[in-house]
This record gives sequence, structure tokens and C-alpha cells, in this order.
Amino acid sequence: MTTTIAAYAAPAAKAPLERTTVPRREVGRNDVLIDIKFAGICHSDIHQARDEWGEGNFPMVPGHEIAGVVAEVGPGVTRYAVGDRVGVGCFVDSCRECANCLAGEEQYCLNGMVGTYNSVGRDGTPTYGGYSTQVVVDENYVLGIPEGLGLDAAAPLLCAGITLFSPLKHWNAGPGKKVAIVGMGGLGHMGVKIAAALGADVTVLSQTLGKQADAERFGARHYYATREAGTFEELANSFDLIINTVSANLDLDSYLGLLAVDGTLVNVGAPEHPVSLSVFSLIGSRRSLAGSMIGGIRQTQEMLDFCAEHNLGAEIEVIPADRINEAYDRVVASDVRYRFVIDTSTIN
Amino acid sequence: MTTTIAAYAAPAAKAPLERTTVPRREVGRNDVLIDIKFAGICHSDIHQARDEWGEGNFPMVPGHEIAGVVAEVGPGVTRYAVGDRVGVGCFVDSCRECANCLAGEEQYCLNGMVGTYNSVGRDGTPTYGGYSTQVVVDENYVLGIPEGLGLDAAAPLLCAGITLFSPLKHWNAGPGKKVAIVGMGGLGHMGVKIAAALGADVTVLSQTLGKQADAERFGARHYYATREAGTFEELANSFDLIINTVSANLDLDSYLGLLAVDGTLVNVGAPEHPVSLSVFSLIGSRRSLAGSMIGGIRQTQEMLDFCAEHNLGAEIEVIPADRINEAYDRVVASDVRYRFVIDTSTIN
Repeated sequence: MTTTIAAYAAPAAKAPLERTTVPRREVGRNDVLIDIKFAGICHSDIHQARDEWGEGNFPMVPGHEIAGVVAEVGPGVTRYAVGDRVGVGCFVDSCRECANCLAGEEQYCLNGMVGTYNSVGRDGTPTYGGYSTQVVVDENYVLGIPEGLGLDAAAPLLCAGITLFSPLKHWNAGPGKKVAIVGMGGLGHMGVKIAAALGADVTVLSQTLGKQADAERFGARHYYATREAGTFEELANSFDLIINTVSANLDLDSYLGLLAVDGTLVNVGAPEHPVSLSVFSLIGSRRSLAGSMIGGIRQTQEMLDFCAEHNLGAEIEVIPADRINEAYDRVVASDVRYRFVIDTSTIN
Repeated sequence: MTTTIAAYAAPAAKAPLERTTVPRREVGRNDVLIDIKFAGICHSDIHQARDEWGEGNFPMVPGHEIAGVVAEVGPGVTRYAVGDRVGVGCFVDSCRECANCLAGEEQYCLNGMVGTYNSVGRDGTPTYGGYSTQVVVDENYVLGIPEGLGLDAAAPLLCAGITLFSPLKHWNAGPGKKVAIVGMGGLGHMGVKIAAALGADVTVLSQTLGKQADAERFGARHYYATREAGTFEELANSFDLIINTVSANLDLDSYLGLLAVDGTLVNVGAPEHPVSLSVFSLIGSRRSLAGSMIGGIRQTQEMLDFCAEHNLGAEIEVIPADRINEAYDRVVASDVRYRFVIDTSTIN
């Protein structure tokens, strides 16, 4: 028996989001019903709601940075109880059988993970995201939000947090490592906080010096404006790891030149168009260009526990649901420090 | 006091190589004078002799795959004695002070290694390569060639061998790892031999099936023609490591799609023009695109010892010096199995 809940949806490609209702499935044996409290606005919500990546299914309820409280559990649920503070990230299911799922890397499920929205569940029904009042999710894809993290500041960790935590851990950011974060928006500001908490020597590479004070407050030791002459010469061959959070096409050869021997430039944003580089930029110092996408369930829980331990929440601006469309325009204009979070109690 | 020795040189860009003489410096305190016996022909010799990479210094004596016997040592030399079988690879000096030199990665010297030819030594004089009868090299840049390796089959190991050994070791090719070698020429055939000897499950990806029998003899378990329909679908998501030895621009997205999660595609050839790829090809499975260039002195010695232990020499066609120009044309036409080696006794 499905229930009907309130949500904000894009009724069609490029149409403004508006209040509507969508169905949620009955709470199954292994399901958790979550009363959503906050939902972060990720730039990818905008790309999808505006159908800029194609293949959008409408009406679309975006939102994959979900924080809330458990309202009901199915009879087989063992991990969560009513009243628990929980989160849901970018996916709500996966095949559970492929090598990547078995390795705990469900985000790379070879049969295709089920996205939290704009996807189709294993029962054949469309998935609807966090810009809504409730969601039903299999407990294996639900995260616990530790005490000490506010649900509002925790919501963006479910995408922005894990998107940076995962590559920082995978490429061993820590004491003695020089790490640069390119771009300091919703993703980048979490990268600075997490990399600094991991003990790395953190540099921010931003177009201008406008966010320098914030970056230092978040833990960066160095800050450079990429538009200033001399930055790329001064920093040549110096970083062990660069995380690029910028989706626009960069001059990759220039950024690769900033890496020391065995250094890696990891893209967590994805430019729409192909990128170009000279292979000599890689060969000359055994450098790597890599990509990384969110993280598995186990590592996402590790990230939340780490952020609670180090008191790392996202920097947020909480808005009511009727300001979602305005917030979208401001995200596109880079006019947010650093993440919009919807107070979902305003949806009803 | 310099001496004058016989050599084959390109007198000017794109001119055929011809017999000439070049100076060799006096044997200094830490120098070894080597009677050259064999010199391999690397495709990069042709690029440089024909000035296809620019910045060629003429007359140019190519040759950085040198095998010979020690004829004289300076008073400070401790590692080598007259009569020792030795080799010289792609560089004959480096700054010895930068972080990379100190780490034993002299090939990535931050102040620029001194190439075996077409470079300028620390004394300000041009360097001349192995297409000659003798060479004087600081003992720290001389390798020992173990008994059991013929000097002729060992010569190509000094570039082709280390170019493949280094990334195979760096990215942990070995038992349980699925490794693909793209292209089976001078570099690729050594990659197959070394990867198989390291215990990896080796696949060759070649344009056609023409070299399949050879590949299996060298230790490959699988062989696919990249021109055949279905190859890329069949092998999707399957390799831990792909070494690309092809200098021509490939469809990188197709090759990246063959990598499993955390897999790396390493380029050891360098296309003249920029390459293009979709960042989604990296992000979707945390893949890396990397580059690697020869190896340090310590690792080059490790490679020679490994090849001797496993009886791995290059597959060669020995030619007299007066056939160098013909051999160049055949290399460009991919008409060699798998490396030309000059018998330098034919130079005089």
C-alpha cells in the first residue's frame, strides 16, 4: 500500500519546481520510513531538474542529501529504531551481487546503482528524492547521523562530504601530504575541512582571493588565486594530491604541472564536454589523472563518524521550500556560502 | 684530453645517418670507458634524428640502449672493473641533489637529467649516443649486465625493458592481477614477457591477430584484436592495469572502459598531439590515466637482474651499421620483430 506525501518537483524539463505530491511505497520487511527534516541542494540537482544531462524523468523530485528521523521500521530491520537520526545519500539500492557491491563500493555497482531520485527502483517504480516530507529506504542504504552533528549541517555531508572524503582517504591525504583543493564551493569547502582534519597541508586554488579568510577558518594553510600571474610557476611540482571540484573545463596541463612525482589530480566534478591534455604532462613525473564518485555505504558511515568526531558540518544557508527556485539561480551564480539546505517542514 | 671515436650520426635534421667521428671526454675520476658492443634502435631515436620533436642538436649520434664491456676506469671508480659487462640507458647524469634524484628517481630530475644523446652534459659539451664504438660515463649512471644475458638481447632492456618494468612494478602487476598490454612492438613485447614473469594474467590488445602466436610464446594468456567488433564490450571493466605502448592517439574512453574499479591506464608512449577523454570515463569507476617514463638507476639494475633471473631478453634482429637508415624505415612501418640492434663492431 503506497502512501502519498508532499514534495517539491520539477513538473517538466527546465520548469520551475513547484509543490506536488508523490507516492512512497509501503514499508517493507527491511525498510525504514524516514521523516525528512533537511535536504541539501547539490549542483547536480539543478543539472538534472533542468535536464542538462539528458534522460531526465519528470515529474522529478530532486534531493540526495537527506537528513531526518526514523518514523517506522519494517519487521526485519536490525540497524535502526524509531527516533534514530539518519541520512540518505545519492543511492538507495544496488545489485548487492557484483564484485563492486560485494567490496562495499556500491557506488560503482556494475549493474547500476539505484539513484535516490530520477532513477528506477528494483520494484520498477520511479525514485523521488529528498525535497519531500518522507522517504522509504532499505536499511542497508541508510546512514546513522551521530549525535553532535546537527541534522541541517549534516545533510550536505551525504553527497558533498563523502565526495571529498572518499578520494582524500583513497589517495592517503594525511600528515606530511600536500593537498590542494581546486574550487571552494559546496564540495570544495568540505574538502578543505576534511583534508585539514586528516592532518594534510592544505592549499586552496580559487579563481580569486575572495574566500581566503573562510578557507583559513576551515583549516587551509595556503591560498592562491589561479588568475594571478606566477601562481602556476610558484607551485610547480609541489602537490601530492589535487582534488578538482570544478565542473568547468580547466587547463589540465597547467594543473598537472603542479603535481610532484607520483602525484594525482582527482576530478570529482565532471565537465559536460571532453577534456584535453598532453600525455607528456603525465609521463614527465609519473602523474595520474583520476576520477572519483561519492563513496560506498561503509565509507559514508565512516565519513559521518569522522565529521562528528572532528565537529565538521557543512556551512549552510537554510531556506524554506518556496525559495528553491531562487536558490537554484544563486547556486548557478556561485552565490552561496556554501550550501543551501531546505527546511522540509516548510513543504506542507 | 678528448679522444675521437667512430660513430653513425644524422648530420642534420631528416638527413640519413652516416659514418663520422665524435669526441669523447677524458676518463675522469669517476668515469667508466665502455667499448660498445651493441646499441638498440628505439623509435624515439628516429623521432629525434628526424627532428620530429624539435630542439634537435646536430650532428646527432642516437642510441640509448647500450651494451658493452668496460675498457678503462677512473681512479675513483668502485663499482666496475675492466672487462665487466655493462649497459647505459637513456640518461648519463642528473643533478643528484633534487628530491627526485635523492629518491632514486633520476629520470624525473627536477633540474633535468642529462640525456645519453641530443643533450648537454654538466661540462657543457654535447652528448653523443650509442651508435658509436666507445662512450665515457660516470659510474653512477652505468648498469651491470648479469651473466646469462647476451649483450645483444640485453641492449634493448636499457630503454624498452625498463620502460615497461617500472610501471608494471609501480602499479603492482603480479599474481591475481589482470594486465593488458596495448601494442606489441619493441616496448610491448617486453611488457608481455615481464608482466608474465611477474605472475600477472596478461592480455595483449593489438590491432590484428597477426602476433598472437608470438604473444603466447612470450607468456600472454589472452590476445584480442582491437579492430574486431565486440572486443571492447567483452572486456569491459576487467583489467587492473593497462599499459599503452602506442604513441598514436587512441580512443581513450574506450580503453578506460576496460578498467575495473581502481584500475589504471598507463601511457609509456607519448602522442605528439593532445589527447581527449570524457572525465566520466574516470569518475564512473575511480579509474586513473597515468604516464611513466623509463626508470631510475636502482630500478634499472633491478630490472636487469630480474630479466637475467627469468631469462628474458629482447627479441632482436642484429644489423650492421650501414643498414641503420633502412632499419629506421622498417621501424616506422612496424616491420621488425621486435627490436633492431646495431652490431657496433661494424662501425669502423
